Amino acid sequence: MVAVEPRLLKGFRDFLPAEQAGRQKMLDAITVAFESCGFAPLSTPAIEYADILLGKYGDEGEKLLYRFQDNGGRDVALRYDLTVPLARVVAQYRDLPRPFRRYQTGTVWRAEKPAHGRFREFMQYDADIVGSASPLADADCIAAGVLALEGLGLDRFVVRIGHRGVLNALLAAAGVQDGKVQAEVLRAIDKIEKIGIDAVRDILASLEPVGHERAGVLLKLLGDADDPSFLTSNATDQLCPDGVAHLRTVFGALDAMGLGRRVSLDLRIARGLDYYTGTVYETTLLDLPSVGSVMSGGRYDTLLETYGVPAIPCVGISIGVDRLFAALVELGTAPTGATGPQAVVCILGDAAFAAGMKLVSDLRRAGLRAESVPEPSARLKKQFEYAARRKARFALLLGDAEVAEGRVTVKDLESGQQTQVAFADLAASLISAISKG
Amino acid sequence: MVAVEPRLLKGFRDFLPAEQAGRQKMLDAITVAFESCGFAPLSTPAIEYADILLGKYGDEGEKLLYRFQDNGGRDVALRYDLTVPLARVVAQYRDLPRPFRRYQTGTVWRAEKPAHGRFREFMQYDADIVGSASPLADADCIAAGVLALEGLGLDRFVVRIGHRGVLNALLAAAGVQDGKVQAEVLRAIDKIEKIGIDAVRDILASLEPVGHERAGVLLKLLGDADDPSFLTSNATDQLCPDGVAHLRTVFGALDAMGLGRRVSLDLRIARGLDYYTGTVYETTLLDLPSVGSVMSGGRYDTLLETYGVPAIPCVGISIGVDRLFAALVELGTAPTGATGPQAVVCILGDAAFAAGMKLVSDLRRAGLRAESVPEPSARLKKQFEYAARRKARFALLLGDAEVAEGRVTVKDLESGQQTQVAFADLAASLISAISKG
Repeated sequence: MVAVEPRLLKGFRDFLPAEQAGRQKMLDAITVAFESCGFAPLSTPAIEYADILLGKYGDEGEKLLYRFQDNGGRDVALRYDLTVPLARVVAQYRDLPRPFRRYQTGTVWRAEKPAHGRFREFMQYDADIVGSASPLADADCIAAGVLALEGLGLDRFVVRIGHRGVLNALLAAAGVQDGKVQAEVLRAIDKIEKIGIDAVRDILASLEPVGHERAGVLLKLLGDADDPSFLTSNATDQLCPDGVAHLRTVFGALDAMGLGRRVSLDLRIARGLDYYTGTVYETTLLDLPSVGSVMSGGRYDTLLETYGVPAIPCVGISIGVDRLFAALVELGTAPTGATGPQAVVCILGDAAFAAGMKLVSDLRRAGLRAESVPEPSARLKKQFEYAARRKARFALLLGDAEVAEGRVTVKDLESGQQTQVAFADLAASLISAISKG
Repeated sequence: MVAVEPRLLKGFRDFLPAEQAGRQKMLDAITVAFESCGFAPLSTPAIEYADILLGKYGDEGEKLLYRFQDNGGRDVALRYDLTVPLARVVAQYRDLPRPFRRYQTGTVWRAEKPAHGRFREFMQYDADIVGSASPLADADCIAAGVLALEGLGLDRFVVRIGHRGVLNALLAAAGVQDGKVQAEVLRAIDKIEKIGIDAVRDILASLEPVGHERAGVLLKLLGDADDPSFLTSNATDQLCPDGVAHLRTVFGALDAMGLGRRVSLDLRIARGLDYYTGTVYETTLLDLPSVGSVMSGGRYDTLLETYGVPAIPCVGISIGVDRLFAALVELGTAPTGATGPQAVVCILGDAAFAAGMKLVSDLRRAGLRAESVPEPSARLKKQFEYAARRKARFALLLGDAEVAEGRVTVKDLESGQQTQVAFADLAASLISAISKG
């Protein structure tokens, strides 16, 4: 038999216990936030008929689908996000009560070129509201996301909120109606932070039919975008009254919820996905802007039509779990979780075997993380080494004498202290010592 | 644009909120049990190089792999279980501390013929110990699984434990050494419950080289298997001393842990997967035996050799999450979880808007599940209907009068009672009412 080299596909990752325990804590914190906002869980398969996913992500996105023929010759694909499967669910189960507020976490796959921080398999954690055109729905998705990030201890972040309708109106006002030119304009505008506003103005001026004057108007309009007065100025209101009114309520609701300092207006946000129709948002970590958006989303009011059902207004937000976790690690504030036992029971002598096993079982039932040494016949020194290797807080020693007297020798591996504790008091004693740190 | 019919692949499922909330509670309960036993979390990708998975599951199993070429032409496959990826991880990261006790939950894919209770995508929840040949490791995997089932409120179940080495010795003692005949014998033995022992004896007697006499011996040996004295009788001890001694310690440890009544000896268990080498176990729900095993596993001491590393002894247990959940639903004891808000804030009049949004936010921060109506301008009747449709326990009414007086009208939608509560006391008041049921 030829040995197979153990290896991973590029762009895919293993998460070993220390990291995975933290990731799970992070997911738990997001769950708490999303449930507090009235969202309920949904789960959908990883594999869908390919035609369910096609035509949703733009040409560039579609190329990244993991698409293949299954064993029955069906044209299938791995999910690319959690939004399109949600739309499929809503179109398929027509009697779901609406508004339908659902959260979902899961793995998605995109055959991207792997790069620093860019993976082919990663997790998203989404909250969406289906069946409400109200701007309060947009605000509540954003609020849920903000509560999730706050629940992870984050303070220095901002959700930048834009609107595709308003952006289109601004582009039209600058004479840019053609989709291709729009895309070029947006790409140029995206570079303002990188290459400076003058260089961007030059690029824009060189584009047909923008020209120098319209480039100035456009940059002026977009430049005002982070000024809150933008939403109350008559000039912009007239460009796209519905969009501006919608944004005004979104910001008003977030303000009233005490989240005003977490959000800002940024009309330059376009987002690549084809299905967005209204608000769009991205989230920047102020201390790590280079990682890109860790939480994004927007309104998609027409996506369901592709499944032959009447349009149903939808809005959602999606946390990039893996990107966010990597950022938290870099910031030194990633959550941590349990990766092993708090107590290891060391057993000396055959007579102590049964009592030791019972002790392990009792500690577990009392809510402690406990295990026995795997080789109760080994020398005590080896057994203590095992407890230390398992990074347990306590080694509990049980020999014939201890069993006869109904007590156990507790060695605190942090302090080195040894004490004798009666069986009946053991769990409470350990829990008390742990809570004291 | 031609509409695409929203539909699922056969053998794949959506889990809508009520069911998914219960599934998540179930996963949480298993996590608590596995962590209490000192296991730590691992996560591996859904997609592996195909050669990592090949040669592990037997010919029949291998045909069920979702295997395809990725966009870069690589031969890849979706994982079939969580055991082989664990073996790959251990072979790849050679410096993992050992014994390595890991738990992992995740989706696996098998292109089975879909049938009642048989799916192409389903979840497993595994606990394994890598690097210990001790029978205490087998016992602890079983103990972890038993604690998980107990944590889900199950009482009437039994983990049936067998041993491949002992079974092979019994077959050899009956003259059955050929692999093909062994498989036929095991298939026949599997039918004892269905067709009766006499019919099985006839089948066995007709097999070359078993014959009538050896069929009797074999059935006698296997028939004794659920008799605890089997492990202490000299006759069987001599057939396979190592295996019998191993089993003896497994049962001894489980007995000492107070779990003796959860387990029984059943040497007829063979399990299909190629990689098992020692103990093997399956779990029957006594009130639903027809669903098959809900928790299975065993020892696989040679699997790692296929990756060109020295043999490392391993043992594990795997809970069939979806099969178990379906069984709990059938038994009427499936866990349930939150699927919506506890409180819906109804808002009458523009002046109450900001106060209403703040109330929602405050309730969430106090740990309650809360949301506002999406249309604060709607008539009160419609707003109350919304709260009822969301199955909230409370509708909180906020109009101009309430805002002026700093209080809110709380309508308990269960009892119909209405009370007035000051803003400052609201969260505590609701929490108290909820805790009273």
